[in-house]
Amino acid sequence: MYVVILAGGSGTRFWPLSRRKHPKQLMSIFGGCSMLQRTVERVLPLKPKRLLVVTNALQVGETARQLEPYRERCRFDVISEPIGRNTAPAVGLAASIIARYDPTGVMVVLPADHYIADEEGFRRTLANGYKAALNGYLVTMGVVPTRPETGYGYIEAETAMRGEGPYPVKRFVEKPDVEKALEFLAAGSYYWNSGMFVWRADVILDQILAHMPELARVLARLTFSSDIWELDDLRPQIDEIYREIAGQSIDYGIMEKADNVVVIPASFGWSDVGSWGAIPEVIHGDAEGNVILDSRHHVAIDSVNCLAYGGGRAVALVGVRDAIVVVTDDALLVCARDRSQDVKKVVEELERRELTEYL
Amino acid sequence: MYVVILAGGSGTRFWPLSRRKHPKQLMSIFGGCSMLQRTVERVLPLKPKRLLVVTNALQVGETARQLEPYRERCRFDVISEPIGRNTAPAVGLAASIIARYDPTGVMVVLPADHYIADEEGFRRTLANGYKAALNGYLVTMGVVPTRPETGYGYIEAETAMRGEGPYPVKRFVEKPDVEKALEFLAAGSYYWNSGMFVWRADVILDQILAHMPELARVLARLTFSSDIWELDDLRPQIDEIYREIAGQSIDYGIMEKADNVVVIPASFGWSDVGSWGAIPEVIHGDAEGNVILDSRHHVAIDSVNCLAYGGGRAVALVGVRDAIVVVTDDALLVCARDRSQDVKKVVEELERRELTEYL
Repeated sequence: MYVVILAGGSGTRFWPLSRRKHPKQLMSIFGGCSMLQRTVERVLPLKPKRLLVVTNALQVGETARQLEPYRERCRFDVISEPIGRNTAPAVGLAASIIARYDPTGVMVVLPADHYIADEEGFRRTLANGYKAALNGYLVTMGVVPTRPETGYGYIEAETAMRGEGPYPVKRFVEKPDVEKALEFLAAGSYYWNSGMFVWRADVILDQILAHMPELARVLARLTFSSDIWELDDLRPQIDEIYREIAGQSIDYGIMEKADNVVVIPASFGWSDVGSWGAIPEVIHGDAEGNVILDSRHHVAIDSVNCLAYGGGRAVALVGVRDAIVVVTDDALLVCARDRSQDVKKVVEELERRELTEYL
Repeated sequence: MYVVILAGGSGTRFWPLSRRKHPKQLMSIFGGCSMLQRTVERVLPLKPKRLLVVTNALQVGETARQLEPYRERCRFDVISEPIGRNTAPAVGLAASIIARYDPTGVMVVLPADHYIADEEGFRRTLANGYKAALNGYLVTMGVVPTRPETGYGYIEAETAMRGEGPYPVKRFVEKPDVEKALEFLAAGSYYWNSGMFVWRADVILDQILAHMPELARVLARLTFSSDIWELDDLRPQIDEIYREIAGQSIDYGIMEKADNVVVIPASFGWSDVGSWGAIPEVIHGDAEGNVILDSRHHVAIDSVNCLAYGGGRAVALVGVRDAIVVVTDDALLVCARDRSQDVKKVVEELERRELTEYL
């Protein structure tokens, strides 16, 4: 098994803790390890042959630094994208490298910044997906929905069975409104699209050739050193490829079009932790629903459903409800709990004003 | 004219910016000078003969440091109370010292931590009070109310006239409920009790003898050096006096009982700035009513009537309403705007937990 971790996100929705050079996946929002490190630790027990982390030029240094502690336990490679081109080129590039070394090698594609509660359950599901991938399927991990979430895309299976799968996929569905989400939840055949995939390198490359011929064409030009894993030698070629290709997601580019897609039901307590507002999904608050992070002492008076990230400070809440407060050495964010998606607008405004010190 | 500044407040309601050693009067909440320094600068143009600042042991060092820049412009003395005993003992002590040097000297009593918008108007009103004090009256500065405030005590004058005064005082009234406050506002004969007074030293000592005989008795024991202003020599006696006497406010101990009390109407834009919630009374917010202090850059999205003290940080507000947020190097406060009186409960809780580093 080869593991490909997609770690190039900019994470503007976790501002001010996340920054361009220190996005969400490199943050230790839950204390201790970063989300990238947790993602790595989660797969190491499966003893992958190699682990590829795809990131970008700004973050490559910190990414390599964070992987250092694991060098003795697995072979790592870090690929730096010159510019973000969404997930399809990153997946295609990783598949090309792996296929050159081990054409029918199975690759697991994982975002670097997702939260998973039950790590054993995650590995069991992945092992299950591995078997389906060996048989030539494009396997997507479908999270069994637990609420009518409108913030995720959905996958509809051909069946409402909820066994171990795999089940053939009928269609991919964009983020629904709340009525649709309630229908999906009731139907029993819908899953949250987690963005976690398993497939053979040759199988996904065939699908890229069929559905994204432009991407296949530029990837076919790659020439490798005699030691395939001297990936630094690929850098000039990667830079050229990325200049030529358009950005596209693997979901839209391949998954929605391919006919060999299956879903493996996943129930391991998953969240994409897409914004500050998602933190209380993964860290349970106290009796009043308050989640206080990175604070040695806190006092809450008549305050409910708040999230505070104190940056080591004492935190006091007085008569506050549904608020998100995050403080760092140079910035303070106060946000209504249902508005955390709009934190990216703050970052956009700071960009507009060219206040790069805060980006 | 002698000026007595009462500067011993603990200022727990401005936590976390105010601390035991750095209370509100020593803070530069409006940028630049502290409130104590502003109080000093406000009276210096009146060329007082001497200026006495009464503070406490914890704050005496910082208080003296803050007065240093004014040494060339006025003679200063700092008196340190061993324990807080409210305003009557502090006033009695200052009056005893002044009376020993200049028995009929007029003393102006000013809290160190009030905000005044129109400083010229303040000095005109004070000069007006000075004349009445010379004639043997206990003069209280009554602020002409501009709203039905329930957070202040009131003074009722014998008349609803609003000239320069002085007007005889009918009674002192505790903080009213909102209905009473509306009545007071409509009546035209009520004033906010500012806690600023003017009287002759001998006159207030006579009244202390009449209404607070215990205090008068211990004050009468004071023995002075040949140089009266060697106030350090008084310290052992002051320590003894404070151990013996009970705490009492000058308002309750004297003003409510004396029959020679007059009020001078004051309209110089006053606030006692009693809590974070009072800041927007004295610093006007932007079009959305947001007041952002100590922040070089801020972004407000769909946010109204907020107060943020950024401690030099960039501040971002997203979808927030009526919130107070204050951040320092070691603490973060988030408070509903109408709950800022309860910030002192946070301090009480920190005391209870013996988290003295935050006090």
